[in-house]
Amino acid sequence: MPRSKGDHEARRRDVSAAVWQVMATRGFAGLTLRAVAAELGATTGLLTHYFPTKRALVAYALDLLEQRTLSRPRRPAGRGLAALRGALLDILPLTPEAIDSNRVWVSSWDAALSDPALAADYAGKYAQGRERLRTRVAAAQELGELPPGDAARIAASAQSFVLGLVVQALFDPTTFPPERQVELLDGYLAALAAEADGTA
Amino acid sequence: MPRSKGDHEARRRDVSAAVWQVMATRGFAGLTLRAVAAELGATTGLLTHYFPTKRALVAYALDLLEQRTLSRPRRPAGRGLAALRGALLDILPLTPEAIDSNRVWVSSWDAALSDPALAADYAGKYAQGRERLRTRVAAAQELGELPPGDAARIAASAQSFVLGLVVQALFDPTTFPPERQVELLDGYLAALAAEADGTA
Repeated sequence: MPRSKGDHEARRRDVSAAVWQVMATRGFAGLTLRAVAAELGATTGLLTHYFPTKRALVAYALDLLEQRTLSRPRRPAGRGLAALRGALLDILPLTPEAIDSNRVWVSSWDAALSDPALAADYAGKYAQGRERLRTRVAAAQELGELPPGDAARIAASAQSFVLGLVVQALFDPTTFPPERQVELLDGYLAALAAEADGTA
Repeated sequence: MPRSKGDHEARRRDVSAAVWQVMATRGFAGLTLRAVAAELGATTGLLTHYFPTKRALVAYALDLLEQRTLSRPRRPAGRGLAALRGALLDILPLTPEAIDSNRVWVSSWDAALSDPALAADYAGKYAQGRERLRTRVAAAQELGELPPGDAARIAASAQSFVLGLVVQALFDPTTFPPERQVELLDGYLAALAAEADGTA
């Protein structure tokens, strides 16, 4: 009896969930057809139908990471410094879902740095992220919430700060629970607000 | 004719150099006996003498990373804020050697996050790093170069900032050449120096 389209879609969702779960617990290094099959309670034979090669599995996993990042819940934008703070909070691993997706992002850096096309793609994504932060920094400056200064430099600095905090929090969640992460971010933003223009 | 001890040591150095080169270009994900053998111009058979299992190769690579990190050249310590700045500069990928070792560190995060013992080991190393930074922050505060405030918070923030800048610079060396990294660090330190105590 042929499978219905609904069955096919449901199975596809199950496969996505299993790939995600394997990445969140074992990283890209642990992402194998066998591990996904075990997570799914299926045979590796079934999975080769979806992923004929390891490369196809990795490409699928990267797409899944991108989709989940784009569709993640975000705080209301607000304006000025509040909008900047919200955008940075949206990145941090403050919830179980955000911990998983950050775990997968950090894990993907190894593969991405080893592949020139993928590294260029990541560099482009981070540049877009900095540009979004830059517009928020500039808006906060216009409102007088941040002192004048090179908004691009401040955006690059803020992005560095949150990325490094992500790494710290993933390795040491006891030392960096959500409230500590927020405290560190607020300390960072307070320093920005107090800063005279360091480049002047 | 039996090999001399000198031959053995020389070969061991060659193997280390080959393992390092593979990690710096392909990451941990690309670290295989075959890749090391190709780098060395040797057979995989010879390498199984050194590394009977993949696990042994990975353990060796992690030791090598630790050794190279401990023995890396460091700036003279100086005092106060200059010492803090020097310690942070020592971490950044400002030279080809520092780029390679940071590349290998970032690459190792995937494996480390997937292995509870290794993750705990990394968390301990980062905690030690923060403690070293904390003593420098406290010294700069005593000298009046940094405003009073929670030195542990400032150290954690500084470590986050440099780790994230490492990641940014590895992905986008064109946007983050050494002089831009130093400029960002100096902007970060200027903000710290200007900050009123954000936690007061």
